[in-house]
Amino acid sequence: MQFQLSPELIEKIEILVEEQNDKELLLHLEDLHHADIAEILDELNLDEATYIIKLLDSEKTSEVLMELDEDDREKILNNLSSKEIADELEEMDTDDAADIIAELSEERQEEVISNIEDQDHAADIKELLRYDEDSAGGLMAKELVRVRETWTVGGCVREMRRQAENVTRVHSIYVVDAKDKLIGRLSLKDLLTVDTKTKIKEIYIPRVDFVNVHTEGEEVARIMQKYDLEAIPVVDDIGRLVGRITIDDMVDFIKEEAEKDYQLAAGISQDVEADDTIWQLSRARLPWLVLGLFGGLGSVYIMQGFDEALETFPILFFFTPLIAAMAGNVGVQSSAIIVQGLANDNIRGSLFHRLLKEVGLSLLNGIALAALVFLFGFIVGQDQLTSLAIALSMLLVIIVAALVGTFVPIILDKRGIDPAIATGPFITTSNDIFGIFLFFYISKLILGF
Amino acid sequence: MQFQLSPELIEKIEILVEEQNDKELLLHLEDLHHADIAEILDELNLDEATYIIKLLDSEKTSEVLMELDEDDREKILNNLSSKEIADELEEMDTDDAADIIAELSEERQEEVISNIEDQDHAADIKELLRYDEDSAGGLMAKELVRVRETWTVGGCVREMRRQAENVTRVHSIYVVDAKDKLIGRLSLKDLLTVDTKTKIKEIYIPRVDFVNVHTEGEEVARIMQKYDLEAIPVVDDIGRLVGRITIDDMVDFIKEEAEKDYQLAAGISQDVEADDTIWQLSRARLPWLVLGLFGGLGSVYIMQGFDEALETFPILFFFTPLIAAMAGNVGVQSSAIIVQGLANDNIRGSLFHRLLKEVGLSLLNGIALAALVFLFGFIVGQDQLTSLAIALSMLLVIIVAALVGTFVPIILDKRGIDPAIATGPFITTSNDIFGIFLFFYISKLILGF
Repeated sequence: MQFQLSPELIEKIEILVEEQNDKELLLHLEDLHHADIAEILDELNLDEATYIIKLLDSEKTSEVLMELDEDDREKILNNLSSKEIADELEEMDTDDAADIIAELSEERQEEVISNIEDQDHAADIKELLRYDEDSAGGLMAKELVRVRETWTVGGCVREMRRQAENVTRVHSIYVVDAKDKLIGRLSLKDLLTVDTKTKIKEIYIPRVDFVNVHTEGEEVARIMQKYDLEAIPVVDDIGRLVGRITIDDMVDFIKEEAEKDYQLAAGISQDVEADDTIWQLSRARLPWLVLGLFGGLGSVYIMQGFDEALETFPILFFFTPLIAAMAGNVGVQSSAIIVQGLANDNIRGSLFHRLLKEVGLSLLNGIALAALVFLFGFIVGQDQLTSLAIALSMLLVIIVAALVGTFVPIILDKRGIDPAIATGPFITTSNDIFGIFLFFYISKLILGF
Repeated sequence: MQFQLSPELIEKIEILVEEQNDKELLLHLEDLHHADIAEILDELNLDEATYIIKLLDSEKTSEVLMELDEDDREKILNNLSSKEIADELEEMDTDDAADIIAELSEERQEEVISNIEDQDHAADIKELLRYDEDSAGGLMAKELVRVRETWTVGGCVREMRRQAENVTRVHSIYVVDAKDKLIGRLSLKDLLTVDTKTKIKEIYIPRVDFVNVHTEGEEVARIMQKYDLEAIPVVDDIGRLVGRITIDDMVDFIKEEAEKDYQLAAGISQDVEADDTIWQLSRARLPWLVLGLFGGLGSVYIMQGFDEALETFPILFFFTPLIAAMAGNVGVQSSAIIVQGLANDNIRGSLFHRLLKEVGLSLLNGIALAALVFLFGFIVGQDQLTSLAIALSMLLVIIVAALVGTFVPIILDKRGIDPAIATGPFITTSNDIFGIFLFFYISKLILGF
């Protein structure tokens, strides 16, 4: 049952495209899942991929297009006429169609929309384009099954058959009043088990979770995960049912969010993938490296200020990478825990309590590490006061680094800034500079150079 | 509609528990969603939480238990008798029940299972316990709707009504042959649109994605995401339908996987949260810090080997934190991109091609950074040969760090080891040591000390 992409298959497809052997091509591709066809197109060059998109019917290719990388899709769409794009959009759910259109230039957008024959579909897409991409309005689809509370189950089933034509998957049936306001829901299961003459108002469930069109995507994800929802209806500011969001769209969103946090922590500022171009990758990575470079130059400057120790205590300079590594690692650990905690909404309790805990934790870890450093000094026969100075100042660096790692994301979050930007090179770099200064300053106090 | 946890609410609940005012407690809790009750219990002490679990009916508390932290749940279960736990399990889906039982001691497991009245349910749970937790068998539930190909739509709907009683959500209806082998599926939508006398064999869809009980969870997640599935049936080694996995269970799995990768990258080795105890957090963090410490001590040792440069080129020692930071940051960037690429299965093409790309990318970034370092030297009036030595050796360090960051995860992955362990302190530490050695070695070649 499993599809396996093989070099032989790609080669065969390439030859068939070359020969323009449409019949054989269709034979090979027709039965494949759209996600598998997308994987094949990924391996072909632009002209070959465009040829196949034009060959297959738009019901299939509309789904293939949704599976492609944004970059690849953009190139293929550039090879299609506005009419051809419009044909693809006709087959898509409104949320997917709006996502695709949003990628086009404004001029092209209007051209494409005017070519969509189904006026309702075009109006729906236009409506979705008005919302912010990451809001519930930007994430929702217009396709859903809605019934009136005054209908009977029988009438409802007839009407549903009509509406269901346009809805890929029926999760829930939403119940609205005469003014189209969302008042409850029905499950398909319930419909199966009651008499067809029953009125909807007698059997619908009046409790229904919903979000407003302006609710942020992150909040939608949180609600759907917390309450284990497979779909959630979206209402406008006066409570009218305007769309629904399904969990499969949110899975991508949740994963992208988690990956974005991770990428930021790793010092990658844009959404890039291993297969992007060198330029794209460089643009995403270089800014953070430059930040690290300035941090490193800051350390150079600080150490020059302590250069009187070069003759008497050169060992201190040998320890600077260790101090920088400790400050960086501790800061990254603390901030990662806080950022994930903030994302999962389980950072509770007072700031003072968290401060005490973080100090306790870093004391615990710091003392263990300081003991190891002291032990190392003892083994290599280092002067004991020097070892003590190094161990103690490292302990202090660790505590400060943990506090910086904990509170910088909390403060950013309170000010409405994404705390994830604080987890990577930003924390590492500032902790490096700060840690090295603290290390030399405390050592100087103890050793007196 | 949104539930808001407030200190006032918690206080009120605490007083009511203290007073044993069951009537008022029920009034406050009965209408709340189980996920919200779980949030409340999270804030109470163990005795209070146990009191509420015993007060509410098991239909509700079984769901509340599933929402709790594993640690909290364990404590509450310890306060319940085997019979009380069995009552909770009766209300749960088999997959949830098996997860809970797996958390108990083996002795307790048998006691609890023997107390479950529904023999079929108990047998199903026992079957699930046999599978590895992270395999499809360990993730699936036994609850599903199955119909025979020989039935009519009418008979099918009758039978479904019976089966649907036990199934929380009906995603797909699976079609089996006389030997219970999975041969296809039906959608609820299809059932709504055909005559009741139609035979199932005339309308079912013979193409159905499925996984084997032994398929790994990660692979299940990949397939369900790739093909946008909301549920996938699970078959045994001879193709018999034995269970199904729904996407809501996989969302948790996918998120946990993404978070685990991020935590590993941040140097946190166990699944911990901000609200865990200091001991748990320390245990998860200290090992990586010790690794970093040993790395740092390695750097001390390397620099001692180059101490003849202390008098002539002390500036080199001031640059070591910068070199270490560059080597670390570049390595983390490269490895994060590869690890995410491997997780999303989009690392394709030959290793040689990837090598060329990574060298190209790090040359691009490295030259930009080297130019900045040289410029800095020029501004502060540093000897030009020294600046050149620093810039050139840093460039080489960056290229090597990028290669290590790229290929260590790829090699680990090829050997069946989770590449995410290579993204954090492991890469940083080895790149630190290696980078500092390379830096001094190249500088020595150029400057000749």
